[in-house]
Amino acid sequence: MSIRIGILAIGNELTSGRVQDSNSAFISRLVQMQGWQVPSIVAVGDSEEAIRKGLEFLLPACDAITVTGGLGPTADDLTTEMIAKIFNLPLYTEESALNYIRQRFEELRLEWTPNNAKQALFPQGARTIFNPIGTAWGFALSVSGKLIAVMPGVPSEAERMLTERVIPLLREHFGISETVMSRTIKLFGLPEAKIDYALADAPLDRPGLQIGFYPRFPEIQVVLTARGTAEPEVKKTLAAASAIVEDKLRKYIFGYDNETLEGNVARLLTEKGLILSVAESCTGGLITDRLTNVPGSSNFLNRGIVAYSNECKIDTLGVPLEIIEKHGAVSEETAVLMASGVRKLGNADLGLATTGIAGPTGGSDLKPVGTVYIAIADRSGSFCRHFNFRWDRRRIKEISSQWALELLRRHVEENGN
Amino acid sequence: MSIRIGILAIGNELTSGRVQDSNSAFISRLVQMQGWQVPSIVAVGDSEEAIRKGLEFLLPACDAITVTGGLGPTADDLTTEMIAKIFNLPLYTEESALNYIRQRFEELRLEWTPNNAKQALFPQGARTIFNPIGTAWGFALSVSGKLIAVMPGVPSEAERMLTERVIPLLREHFGISETVMSRTIKLFGLPEAKIDYALADAPLDRPGLQIGFYPRFPEIQVVLTARGTAEPEVKKTLAAASAIVEDKLRKYIFGYDNETLEGNVARLLTEKGLILSVAESCTGGLITDRLTNVPGSSNFLNRGIVAYSNECKIDTLGVPLEIIEKHGAVSEETAVLMASGVRKLGNADLGLATTGIAGPTGGSDLKPVGTVYIAIADRSGSFCRHFNFRWDRRRIKEISSQWALELLRRHVEENGN
Repeated sequence: MSIRIGILAIGNELTSGRVQDSNSAFISRLVQMQGWQVPSIVAVGDSEEAIRKGLEFLLPACDAITVTGGLGPTADDLTTEMIAKIFNLPLYTEESALNYIRQRFEELRLEWTPNNAKQALFPQGARTIFNPIGTAWGFALSVSGKLIAVMPGVPSEAERMLTERVIPLLREHFGISETVMSRTIKLFGLPEAKIDYALADAPLDRPGLQIGFYPRFPEIQVVLTARGTAEPEVKKTLAAASAIVEDKLRKYIFGYDNETLEGNVARLLTEKGLILSVAESCTGGLITDRLTNVPGSSNFLNRGIVAYSNECKIDTLGVPLEIIEKHGAVSEETAVLMASGVRKLGNADLGLATTGIAGPTGGSDLKPVGTVYIAIADRSGSFCRHFNFRWDRRRIKEISSQWALELLRRHVEENGN
Repeated sequence: MSIRIGILAIGNELTSGRVQDSNSAFISRLVQMQGWQVPSIVAVGDSEEAIRKGLEFLLPACDAITVTGGLGPTADDLTTEMIAKIFNLPLYTEESALNYIRQRFEELRLEWTPNNAKQALFPQGARTIFNPIGTAWGFALSVSGKLIAVMPGVPSEAERMLTERVIPLLREHFGISETVMSRTIKLFGLPEAKIDYALADAPLDRPGLQIGFYPRFPEIQVVLTARGTAEPEVKKTLAAASAIVEDKLRKYIFGYDNETLEGNVARLLTEKGLILSVAESCTGGLITDRLTNVPGSSNFLNRGIVAYSNECKIDTLGVPLEIIEKHGAVSEETAVLMASGVRKLGNADLGLATTGIAGPTGGSDLKPVGTVYIAIADRSGSFCRHFNFRWDRRRIKEISSQWALELLRRHVEENGN
């Protein structure tokens, strides 16, 4: 039977709806990748009774429990104290933690107040878990053979501590020596059902290999997880499985693991020394917003023009008035001229343009809401692709920006310019 | 003692981390607004045992339970069947639901398959809950005096059904005749601690009135909830409380309830018939992206220029090279000339510009990462504001776009142009 990990999230901000609990989904996904399972996730407020009941509910059905939240220095951070009380353990001050916290305060020139010493208190017998980015260290406690791993609630801290410290601790606790490795393959342009279908006959059903699908609109992530005793063998299994997915779906893969589409477009353009200019109508600036999320984007991005008026399409991008009058602002002709016009503006290597009807109004029988044209121009010519999306305004913008970046990625990969 | 509502979320996609549970936070917030409380939130997979255990855990500590998820037509949608089994109730077909689902299929020209009839099955004694946007109706069941309200897991459906049907059902169940009304006041530009401090002496501590703070970076939402027997009196309490908050914090309030900052800027500009042009450097298109999320934004937005190169600032916006060489691309002088330049481009009434260092590199001692200048130009002049933000790249973009829109909102409100 599979190892069962219970998840307990502590904090009044969760049960009042003040903050959304994102840690539990992150923990579940990591647990799933280990081949373990999560029977339940419980969120409770900052009270002894609630924490006790949550633990009592999870302990019988689980082999280990992760706890997040309530490790801060303020009066309503009760987790350590409550857990010590529940298991009848005295608290002690861990000097190394106290020194570390004091040192952090000095470095950041923060005023020391006595309540901060609370963060160096741990239940007797606990093993501390170092926090590489904050002052709230976690701890692990073994109770009747079950491990309880406690982390702070701040998502960035919990995620790092979980990945780097808690998963290894759990593996040690369960005596797991097998290697687990995973690879996320990011796809766009094919619905989940078709990805599933494309892989139905693929020889991915082998021992030690697990495959999961995670939709993250507008992308689909395929997560491959391989397990085995020897690392080289696990690496080989993972590489083989990855090759099978690539073989079936190469065209739709835009990145791996922590890569983003805009990040990979940025990398490609930078590597090839290409300069890009963008003209956006229906996407309204979302394409350049995404590209400028990538550090160093000023190396390849010359300019973006959000041409929300016909006037701007005409006077800045040089689309002739007659073209707009004859074919419409939302047309292949206009899209192509926007792309070539913006490319010339900055003497860029590439011009990318979008024009469409994001709705909710503005559609017609011939060009309904969701009609979008995306064009790319380079020094030798241009092309345009036409789409009919069936989403709301925001999602039409999102999927249009995704297609624009994806078409650009494919174009640069295939043509080198 | 306050009414206690337990939350049970059902679905393997939750315990595997495939999807994040956003319903539970939404339900918690609505429950909190009623003056009730949530002792715990539990998420379990699609199995009878897990659902049973979740209910057994919640029932003793709660007066009612909301259940979301697992009401679809597929084989792993087990919620209705499992709940019927747990409480020993036979299932029956609700003809009105079946007819409704069949009709929806005809309207959408979808092929009918027999498994869809499953969505018209309900446990004997249940009261159906109409789903105004989908085919998965919910139901409410009274078990030993406790109400169990079951809804689909799709967030848009659960949110509407909860607000329109489940909260009224729960009120009826608890025999609550008092009126509850709430108002969300949205603030920006003051940290939560300072908002708290500003309201510390305000006479908001009165019976039937509740105040909550919800940070939603970069905004803070203050939620006022008033309760009482007569609606006019509750309205009066809410209006009085709202006036107190407005009196203390007027300058920082940009909207109410479902309003957004970009939506209110769009409304103001449209009402006053003003045309806007935007020049963005460090925000990279995020300002126009936000403005174009508002339907009808083409009525006031003339253009956006994402001036990511000095060349674009010079040739398109008309910032003199000497200014950039003397003061830098990130300077008050450049910001002001970007704003007046872009305003003139489209002969717009207003020009809005941002220039700054979003990082992680590019900072200096004099102008560290987070240095941002935001300028506004109108037909009579211009002004600029200087900021030093301490966030990461994305948050610097977000807070800069927020300040830019907020300064524009205040300017248009105060000056009418």
